[in-house]
Amino acid sequence: MRGALTGREFGMGPSIPLMISVEDVRAAEERIKGRVRRTPLLEAGPSTFFKLEYAQHAGSFKTRGMFNQILAAGPIPPAGVVVASGGNAGLAAAYAAGRLGVPAEVFVPETAPPVKVAKLGKLGARVTQVGAEYAEAAAASAVHAEQTGALFLHAYDDPGMVAGNGTLGLELLDDLGFDTVLVAVGGGGLAAGVAAALADRPVNVVGVEPENCPTLRGALDAGAPVDVPVGGVAADSLGARRIGLLPYQIMVLTGMASLLVDDPAIVEARRRLWDDYRIVVEHGTAAAYAALTSGAYRPADGERVVVLLCGANTNPGDLA
Amino acid sequence: MRGALTGREFGMGPSIPLMISVEDVRAAEERIKGRVRRTPLLEAGPSTFFKLEYAQHAGSFKTRGMFNQILAAGPIPPAGVVVASGGNAGLAAAYAAGRLGVPAEVFVPETAPPVKVAKLGKLGARVTQVGAEYAEAAAASAVHAEQTGALFLHAYDDPGMVAGNGTLGLELLDDLGFDTVLVAVGGGGLAAGVAAALADRPVNVVGVEPENCPTLRGALDAGAPVDVPVGGVAADSLGARRIGLLPYQIMVLTGMASLLVDDPAIVEARRRLWDDYRIVVEHGTAAAYAALTSGAYRPADGERVVVLLCGANTNPGDLA
Repeated sequence: MRGALTGREFGMGPSIPLMISVEDVRAAEERIKGRVRRTPLLEAGPSTFFKLEYAQHAGSFKTRGMFNQILAAGPIPPAGVVVASGGNAGLAAAYAAGRLGVPAEVFVPETAPPVKVAKLGKLGARVTQVGAEYAEAAAASAVHAEQTGALFLHAYDDPGMVAGNGTLGLELLDDLGFDTVLVAVGGGGLAAGVAAALADRPVNVVGVEPENCPTLRGALDAGAPVDVPVGGVAADSLGARRIGLLPYQIMVLTGMASLLVDDPAIVEARRRLWDDYRIVVEHGTAAAYAALTSGAYRPADGERVVVLLCGANTNPGDLA
Repeated sequence: MRGALTGREFGMGPSIPLMISVEDVRAAEERIKGRVRRTPLLEAGPSTFFKLEYAQHAGSFKTRGMFNQILAAGPIPPAGVVVASGGNAGLAAAYAAGRLGVPAEVFVPETAPPVKVAKLGKLGARVTQVGAEYAEAAAASAVHAEQTGALFLHAYDDPGMVAGNGTLGLELLDDLGFDTVLVAVGGGGLAAGVAAALADRPVNVVGVEPENCPTLRGALDAGAPVDVPVGGVAADSLGARRIGLLPYQIMVLTGMASLLVDDPAIVEARRRLWDDYRIVVEHGTAAAYAALTSGAYRPADGERVVVLLCGANTNPGDLA
């Protein structure tokens, strides 16, 4: 028994080809080599391992995806790149563009906190604040891309993004032998990338979602990506309204399960990462660990479980 | 050229035997095996590596030394162990004693912050608050050991402590090939242990001290351990009044240099660890990195430098 909520038979691989193949992820790895950090692995306990991906440039795994999304797109237009995100995607895009010497325009709502806007500016991005809500900023960013010819970067629903994030899965294979990896799901770009990278391996990729941001569960229940209500402590990083279509298709084909954790369990898991390991992560990232600490995922005896600690763009002040 | 401030010829080894031999450190490694975490290594930049020892049990390297100090002492007296420290040594002693099922008594001054006292209690230690100053608590702890027969644990000036901390040096050898390791110095128990572990290797161990806690520099200038004025941002972890005699002797025999960094450089280095790597450490630990960021230590081209990030018993609130 490998935990109650797993739907995939090991080693079989998906029955039809995935939209993102292992070769696509290998190509991404080649493309972003030397531009991203190889992040460390901590043996956190017997058969439990943390992948410390929050130490990635710009504080999250999205830097892998953004580099790949930009580099896979071919020649970069003179207008550079554009993204709509005041969070991890925006930071990763701004960082990657800066390193590549490409102009980056980041659209955020007028309500975006000044500290986030300042961070993006520090990374060299031009920040445009438009509209009262995220949707308005996103719409404006699409118009901007259309008008200027800038390369539009998606935060998760893009083949380059998924393949780039998937390089984390290949790195894990090189780090250790393991049975299961727990991944937080929001838009789904990370979990799908890791699932694609590991599709031909006898490894179990489990998606973990806050009860308050159940994009995968909502899609699985409806049979297709649908808008779900999002909120709670992890909404800043996992608050996509619906799961990306491409990530969802990969998840379905690889039989990924959705495991739900509640907000108190997430807060407790984040606190325990600090108390027991002096690790600071976002609430969204802590959701993956909450699957273990809350008992939502119960590994079998000797099952080797990796928890992807994928982002730390968070305020550490509340851990004081 | 390997940085201006190094006094040792590589590969020669000390000219007379050290008080702590490599074999002593190997014996310590065997003794504490399975009780301490093997901590990860992060490739932080070209030829720069961080050893993430702050993720050790109880938040610092001292857990290595405390386990070894207790286990090397032979049968543990019924009264258990006693230590005087509200900081890393106290936490490490309380943790190790707790895991070994041994009573631990921790003496701290009446002025110790309630949060520290609570942490020690949570680890299962009995906390006694005595006197207005540290020296009074320390004196009371010695009387307690005398009266009860409890094993007195020293925070740094003890062969078991030095050898136990030195296991970090052996772990580094197993982690990677490197030329230089930067270590923060307070009482000297870590730097001496690492120097002892690496004594027969062509590796440069550099001690880094806050200008405001210059225990090694003071001793080197005076030709023997002497009291020095201590204060500033790193005093909570590096604020020993004088360097331990045993650590000092090892440092002299291995030709360890003292590199001084000022408080603003330490604060800046700690901030950069958070901004660039999402790593939270104590100010004392950040001192080691400050040697690089301030330019106090300038590696030669291609020189592989490890920074020991050795403790994170800190309030992350000021990084918000």
